[in-house]
Amino acid sequence: MADTLRGSAVFAQSGGPTAVLNSSLAGAVQEAARTDCIDKLLGAYNGILGVLREELFDLRKERAEDIENLKRTPAAALGSCRHKVKSAADIERITEVLRAHEVRFFFYAGGNDSMDTADRVARLAAEQGYELRVIGIPKTIDNDLAGTDHSPGYGSAVKFNAAQVMEAGRDTEALWTHDPCTVQEIMGRNAGWIAAGTGLARRVPEDAPHLIYVPEHPVSLEQVARDVGECLARFKRCFIAAAEGLKNQKGEYLAEAGGAFSQDDFGHRQLGGVAGRLREFIEREVGVKCRANQPGTAQRTAMHFASLTDVGEAAEVGAAAVRKAVKGQSGVMITLVREPGPVYRCSTGTAPLAEVAKGEKLLPQEYLNAEGNGITEAMKDYVKPLVRGEAPVNIGPDGLPLYVRLQKRFVPKKLAQWAPAPGKRK
Amino acid sequence: MADTLRGSAVFAQSGGPTAVLNSSLAGAVQEAARTDCIDKLLGAYNGILGVLREELFDLRKERAEDIENLKRTPAAALGSCRHKVKSAADIERITEVLRAHEVRFFFYAGGNDSMDTADRVARLAAEQGYELRVIGIPKTIDNDLAGTDHSPGYGSAVKFNAAQVMEAGRDTEALWTHDPCTVQEIMGRNAGWIAAGTGLARRVPEDAPHLIYVPEHPVSLEQVARDVGECLARFKRCFIAAAEGLKNQKGEYLAEAGGAFSQDDFGHRQLGGVAGRLREFIEREVGVKCRANQPGTAQRTAMHFASLTDVGEAAEVGAAAVRKAVKGQSGVMITLVREPGPVYRCSTGTAPLAEVAKGEKLLPQEYLNAEGNGITEAMKDYVKPLVRGEAPVNIGPDGLPLYVRLQKRFVPKKLAQWAPAPGKRK
Repeated sequence: MADTLRGSAVFAQSGGPTAVLNSSLAGAVQEAARTDCIDKLLGAYNGILGVLREELFDLRKERAEDIENLKRTPAAALGSCRHKVKSAADIERITEVLRAHEVRFFFYAGGNDSMDTADRVARLAAEQGYELRVIGIPKTIDNDLAGTDHSPGYGSAVKFNAAQVMEAGRDTEALWTHDPCTVQEIMGRNAGWIAAGTGLARRVPEDAPHLIYVPEHPVSLEQVARDVGECLARFKRCFIAAAEGLKNQKGEYLAEAGGAFSQDDFGHRQLGGVAGRLREFIEREVGVKCRANQPGTAQRTAMHFASLTDVGEAAEVGAAAVRKAVKGQSGVMITLVREPGPVYRCSTGTAPLAEVAKGEKLLPQEYLNAEGNGITEAMKDYVKPLVRGEAPVNIGPDGLPLYVRLQKRFVPKKLAQWAPAPGKRK
Repeated sequence: MADTLRGSAVFAQSGGPTAVLNSSLAGAVQEAARTDCIDKLLGAYNGILGVLREELFDLRKERAEDIENLKRTPAAALGSCRHKVKSAADIERITEVLRAHEVRFFFYAGGNDSMDTADRVARLAAEQGYELRVIGIPKTIDNDLAGTDHSPGYGSAVKFNAAQVMEAGRDTEALWTHDPCTVQEIMGRNAGWIAAGTGLARRVPEDAPHLIYVPEHPVSLEQVARDVGECLARFKRCFIAAAEGLKNQKGEYLAEAGGAFSQDDFGHRQLGGVAGRLREFIEREVGVKCRANQPGTAQRTAMHFASLTDVGEAAEVGAAAVRKAVKGQSGVMITLVREPGPVYRCSTGTAPLAEVAKGEKLLPQEYLNAEGNGITEAMKDYVKPLVRGEAPVNIGPDGLPLYVRLQKRFVPKKLAQWAPAPGKRK
């Protein structure tokens, strides 16, 4: 019977942190405590690198209250990475490490790339005849994972970014006689889900953001100049929410970071500077002063104003991953399934890792207006339930949030040191 | 008797918005409702520009609940400006407008420049023999106003920025294998009070910010390279809080925004890009990937995570301004006076506008460590009470903050249109 498999479990967190990635870890760890199929509960230090390097620590030695408070702690308490498992030797190494520690359950939280890694690990183990249940846990602020209604991390990113757009929008509204235009740069390399989500902040036409630009709709600088001019004529000010991955009609990024470190192991180009680029253009061509806000990494870990719905769903996908693995499932990612009807209800399902890894969910056309500079009511209906509720925050006597840090008691290594394939940057 | 003066009152908000500038307005309006010396209560649309242009609206026609909710609404509900009153004609115009509307009480909330404007208005009225009571209301996130222990707006700016440093710091901590270094750019042109305040986030050495750079302590790029190298050796990651106005040993800004709009009417150069500058330098010279976060204007209006202490004090200085004006004071700014002793207590006092206008309060040496790359316990003791408490936030059914907008019912103009002196940009 499938559910008689016993062994240890490894949890790993991968890719860009979110406000709720640790909630998924907490959900999984708390669920794992309720089953007797799982012996050791191991955390991989820095994602798949922690498996490759055999840097694993004992999650059962962490304090129960710290595990609970992971639901109020942003980023990745296990450590994350952007390492791409490429070589056959690395794949061998992973199963060797999992086998050495009698790991039968491997839980990997991340985005598309991580689901690809998880899928490779699952296939390799199957090829080797080693029974290993691999479950992906969805995580990305970008909301671009295929097979799921939405991804944990997205709702909180929207909630915080929409609040920032509201607040910086009120700043522009107050100082329009001096600074009539502001561009808020929002994460989203290929998918403009977060920038589109900030459209929630626009309850009435005069509210920011007046214009939203997303990668799914190419934008020419001529259109930007025209849109900004019309907006200034109407409201005397113009607030733009711009996804970092904006492209022109030729499919070229409007802004790309240069330098030696502008690509990661996956070949993703690091973007940044779309706000600065638009600011420079608007000042020159429209002839008004423009400000550029680029909150950067702070926008994806803003636990101090996270969505309660998102935190709860993140914990639930973590718990579901453990339940489904114990019941015999493998090679799937947990998905969020929105039930039809006017009241928001969401349950968990599964999608094959390989399909998730191959797919990329972009904003559908019906969520964008015809001009490609704003969103529709359908988009608002989609995103509204995801930002609902304020996640509780533990505040210290110094008036600042209290975020936990795990103690990370590493278990002894059983294998020789990992020798990374030559030619890697790290 | 001084307290028998009767007439209308004008409130104006000036300069960069803050999270709590509207709290001061609410405090003043609510206090004014309790006195019968004040006839009409007028709001000046966009600071002193609203007086010059005779764009005044009736604050008594606003809904009482909107006035109360100003304490939960960021930016400047009256509208603000950065207009410098320079010409004798403009000064004449101001008293002409105030006289036309029988204004005897003029309340002006702002920073050093606004106190200078208020002082000029007071002196001109006195020269003209027109009895006018002018009271300044302190407002600046920069905390650089002389004569007051601290300024409303500062505590909330620190609270939000410190939380961002914590959160982006956890991001860097999670992804140190890929992005080991982050620079968070924080407002502060001449004074590094906010950047220094984010040092509160560093409860233990491994917490961000590992390095804090402020304008009060010149920094060479060589020192940055050395500091970052040491920090990476110690923690494997390095998080820097950098004030936008960093200067080198020659007194030159490390980063200055270019373009046609890089100076305001007061001759202030608009800064920005210190994070990008440091990022580029660290990647090249230290040889590690570095990220740059520049939240820009969103950092000064982050009402969703404002300091309850700050909101309360802001309302109190507004109320005190009205009380002191009614009692006969003029030509002063309300100050915050911290009582000595281990328990934080703060009352209001006054300082002459002229002295405030001339002064600029920079970080004292004892608040900075010897290396000039961090803060001392004395600084923490100073700032801790100011960020305490979480200001309540009204949240809508869409999960986002509810911020009010005033109705602004303008009163009829009584004078001919203002003719600005030639040669102005606006």
